[in-house]
Amino acid sequence: MDLRLGDNQYGKAEVRLVRVDRAEAGHTVTDLNVSTALAGDLDATHLTGDNSGVLPTDTQKNTVYAFARDGVGEPEEFGLRLARHFVDTTPTITRARVHLERYRWERITVDGQPAHHSFARAAGVRTATVTYDGTTAWVVSGLTDLTVMNTTGSEFHGFHRDRFTTLPEATDRILATAVTARWRHATDTANWAESFGLARGALLEAFADTHSRSLQQTLHAMGERVLRGQPDLAQIRLSLPNKHHFLVDLSPFDLDNPGEVFFAADRPYGLIEGEVIRDGAPDPGLAWW
Amino acid sequence: MDLRLGDNQYGKAEVRLVRVDRAEAGHTVTDLNVSTALAGDLDATHLTGDNSGVLPTDTQKNTVYAFARDGVGEPEEFGLRLARHFVDTTPTITRARVHLERYRWERITVDGQPAHHSFARAAGVRTATVTYDGTTAWVVSGLTDLTVMNTTGSEFHGFHRDRFTTLPEATDRILATAVTARWRHATDTANWAESFGLARGALLEAFADTHSRSLQQTLHAMGERVLRGQPDLAQIRLSLPNKHHFLVDLSPFDLDNPGEVFFAADRPYGLIEGEVIRDGAPDPGLAWW
Amino acid sequence: MDLRLGDNQYGKAEVRLVRVDRAEAGHTVTDLNVSTALAGDLDATHLTGDNSGVLPTDTQKNTVYAFARDGVGEPEEFGLRLARHFVDTTPTITRARVHLERYRWERITVDGQPAHHSFARAAGVRTATVTYDGTTAWVVSGLTDLTVMNTTGSEFHGFHRDRFTTLPEATDRILATAVTARWRHATDTANWAESFGLARGALLEAFADTHSRSLQQTLHAMGERVLRGQPDLAQIRLSLPNKHHFLVDLSPFDLDNPGEVFFAADRPYGLIEGEVIRDGAPDPGLAWW
Amino acid sequence: MDLRLGDNQYGKAEVRLVRVDRAEAGHTVTDLNVSTALAGDLDATHLTGDNSGVLPTDTQKNTVYAFARDGVGEPEEFGLRLARHFVDTTPTITRARVHLERYRWERITVDGQPAHHSFARAAGVRTATVTYDGTTAWVVSGLTDLTVMNTTGSEFHGFHRDRFTTLPEATDRILATAVTARWRHATDTANWAESFGLARGALLEAFADTHSRSLQQTLHAMGERVLRGQPDLAQIRLSLPNKHHFLVDLSPFDLDNPGEVFFAADRPYGLIEGEVIRDGAPDPGLAWW
Repeated sequence: MDLRLGDNQYGKAEVRLVRVDRAEAGHTVTDLNVSTALAGDLDATHLTGDNSGVLPTDTQKNTVYAFARDGVGEPEEFGLRLARHFVDTTPTITRARVHLERYRWERITVDGQPAHHSFARAAGVRTATVTYDGTTAWVVSGLTDLTVMNTTGSEFHGFHRDRFTTLPEATDRILATAVTARWRHATDTANWAESFGLARGALLEAFADTHSRSLQQTLHAMGERVLRGQPDLAQIRLSLPNKHHFLVDLSPFDLDNPGEVFFAADRPYGLIEGEVIRDGAPDPGLAWW
Repeated sequence: MDLRLGDNQYGKAEVRLVRVDRAEAGHTVTDLNVSTALAGDLDATHLTGDNSGVLPTDTQKNTVYAFARDGVGEPEEFGLRLARHFVDTTPTITRARVHLERYRWERITVDGQPAHHSFARAAGVRTATVTYDGTTAWVVSGLTDLTVMNTTGSEFHGFHRDRFTTLPEATDRILATAVTARWRHATDTANWAESFGLARGALLEAFADTHSRSLQQTLHAMGERVLRGQPDLAQIRLSLPNKHHFLVDLSPFDLDNPGEVFFAADRPYGLIEGEVIRDGAPDPGLAWW
Repeated sequence: MDLRLGDNQYGKAEVRLVRVDRAEAGHTVTDLNVSTALAGDLDATHLTGDNSGVLPTDTQKNTVYAFARDGVGEPEEFGLRLARHFVDTTPTITRARVHLERYRWERITVDGQPAHHSFARAAGVRTATVTYDGTTAWVVSGLTDLTVMNTTGSEFHGFHRDRFTTLPEATDRILATAVTARWRHATDTANWAESFGLARGALLEAFADTHSRSLQQTLHAMGERVLRGQPDLAQIRLSLPNKHHFLVDLSPFDLDNPGEVFFAADRPYGLIEGEVIRDGAPDPGLAWW
Repeated sequence: MDLRLGDNQYGKAEVRLVRVDRAEAGHTVTDLNVSTALAGDLDATHLTGDNSGVLPTDTQKNTVYAFARDGVGEPEEFGLRLARHFVDTTPTITRARVHLERYRWERITVDGQPAHHSFARAAGVRTATVTYDGTTAWVVSGLTDLTVMNTTGSEFHGFHRDRFTTLPEATDRILATAVTARWRHATDTANWAESFGLARGALLEAFADTHSRSLQQTLHAMGERVLRGQPDLAQIRLSLPNKHHFLVDLSPFDLDNPGEVFFAADRPYGLIEGEVIRDGAPDPGLAWW
């Protein structure tokens, strides 16, 4: 036949799991959004509707909840447990990818003390993606929903001009972006919590203390900072929308505007994407979702 | 004629204004979303297309930016300045409503020190709505995007049952909600920043330390706490979606689930709305948008 | 006591109900999003946590599904059945509001014939809001998610100017809006389907064939057209965002732009709200949600 | 050095372009969302902040609008013009990707006749992605926002069971999905409009007339139908969320539910992804964004 089934995968997306750990000293909450995707010998279901090799997506969901009974731990760990389970116990399945988002909850303060069992959602989402092929497990950690702004220390000039270029050179502008970053670990074991904290801190610090001549330069500085701080990280990918803040022209109202009043635009936005790689790092294999 | 024009208003919605104040010690950012709505003698534009009484929405937007040149201050103040300006300077306009959302930015920490000009977006939106009719100005402050959770200390039982009732009684459940609150000031002058801080703190504390037998009870406790803390507040309205967290039945997998593994549902959700009023408070007039 | 509970209501929001009617000639789909809100003597639950008067929101959801077993019919009918049930059978409840959104599905065409049981979602949402107080039922029908555009036949000039006005006069502009309309019926019985079709048609036709000198004028024409076509409609409210399309200045590239190339802006947008009322119509009572 | 810059690209995302063509017989509207992404020798800007090789994203936006002055045509054509322009005229740029979304507008009917210049938005988004490397141009067409439902003719049984499987076998269920499809052309010239119409029709018909034993089987049938209908298509990728509709258990209310009353769930959802490839088709090269 002249047509054939190509790459495919299937799973349950966005399983919302909240796990409560109850300790005397205070509860803790783990709030996850888990998506699973399995691949393997699935020709039969596609071509003939024979589902004997298909572990239902409903079962994948059940597995997420059942595994949570024993505790969840760090997202990377939970992803590894799930991915290995699906491949190792399902005959047809040769690859599992588990993507996790973890939402942040901070303890509410009551009378100056952290509450025992009361929490408020904070900004920022931690992510993890685990891929396992029966032999190797690749772990990518990351974050999203981290919106940052520098009100000075950002320039953009000296760029290439053609007949469609009207942008003025800027020697002092607002630089704002919503960071999505994903970094690949060289191994499948790590102190995931510590590693995440270091990476997040490095991203924020590099964004804040880099005098920027382009968002590309800032992106590179952020990526480099993360990798320099952790030798076990092989690679980092960043996607940075340039959230434009335009200085409003107040001259029609006989007013100057010395870098004070800005219009925050929605669309279009710049989009800067790039990665920093450690030389000699292990091959990415199936790491990137 | 048998048909007539009823109530109407028009304005510019969602004017995104970012104001940077530059001080030696560190910049500050005021990030606002401003919506204006004007009403008055506007029959002509509706009925004949005679626009001579219409201050364009584009002008309203310009005014927001021009007024920001002198500084913005608290959202309530900025709303009052704008509302009074529109009514007092536009012949046809007899009522102005200005609704403001203020987004939170926190200073990034670099080397253990707060950065000079670098910020990260935090969760939570502060709101203010100012209405002015040429004589009186009504101020409603509030907040939204405040998602909170108690992992215990919440019950729901003893409710009315009919033939469609299947809900089991709950003596220990997760209680989670996304708070939208608006409180009306008795006057048009106040220490807006302090008042907001007190109200937000009261909402969080009352949510956290109220042992809840229904979300209605929690709602009332939250509203009462805000009003008790500030004699100059006349009224508070709360809208609290009950963000259901269902205990997952793990028994098919021979597992118990002692309040640990939950499914966070999207829809449907409960929606509890209510208000607490101070006896003898001034009439709300046009306060509520 | 100096504080008191004010107005309040509670219910289940966004109950997603899909009803399939199976006939030989072809299935039909009714796809609804139903929200209920009950009010009455609910002081006890707010003040003491005594829930004996509270019909759970879970029961309200169950009722929606159980009532659908007998068929759904038009949204207004289904809302009336539900609202009357809640008030008439629950001792504490004195007011019920049911808000319904109905999504549009069109039959897929296969081999030039309408399919028997296959559908595609179409744009546009039909809405209905029913309020019942034990005696009177008010019905408001409406629509949302109807985005329309005129590429000519729209002007805006002759407006009031002040020192903040920079808008040029426009004699030919794009006029685009996303219509949200709600019309109140004078009675609680009607041919709801026919009425909706007439109203939707009138809105579209009036938008299309009104030469517009302001969006306000178009709004009024749309409202008037709906009421003129149906004597049993008492009132209509319209909310029309002015979705700005700005002519792009191509002169820096030595190009003219005779009304051809536009930038479609997101924010800010104008927002025009108004209503048309039939003289002598019955009082709105509790009609408006 | 031990770290190096990896793959990167930058551009302007979501340039909202509305083009009006004015003919005596009636206007036509082309409503696009255009995103550009350029890659090439961009090390300098990342590493040193030397921007001399960077064509600003603002210029990319300007180019989109300026090119629209000559007419837009089909999305694929417009993408090809832009991609070739960026690579062929910018010294540093060796790869351009242009992604376009086109929104559907249908002519409003007035007095039974199609209006001259009045339109309503319809559901469904047509997409195109063009990639050009200075030599070869790859064109991928597609669509998204096409939500479809079969109310019968769908089964799911005979699947693999493990200890976490509780799903009952289904011999008659609702099958609903929101189609995202992208198909790769073997060449960079085609009758794009005709090809799109054929592909969309094939997707709808295959969804409607395939008796489904799994969503995977339906996915394959849809992909196959598209490729069979157009020999110049090399490959198609489909992403189909399984939008679950659960039969509501009405037995607690002494009601049966013979496939009539369903709960439409939001999350989690199944996600089925797959592709169909024509044997011997040209290599995809850089086709997939």
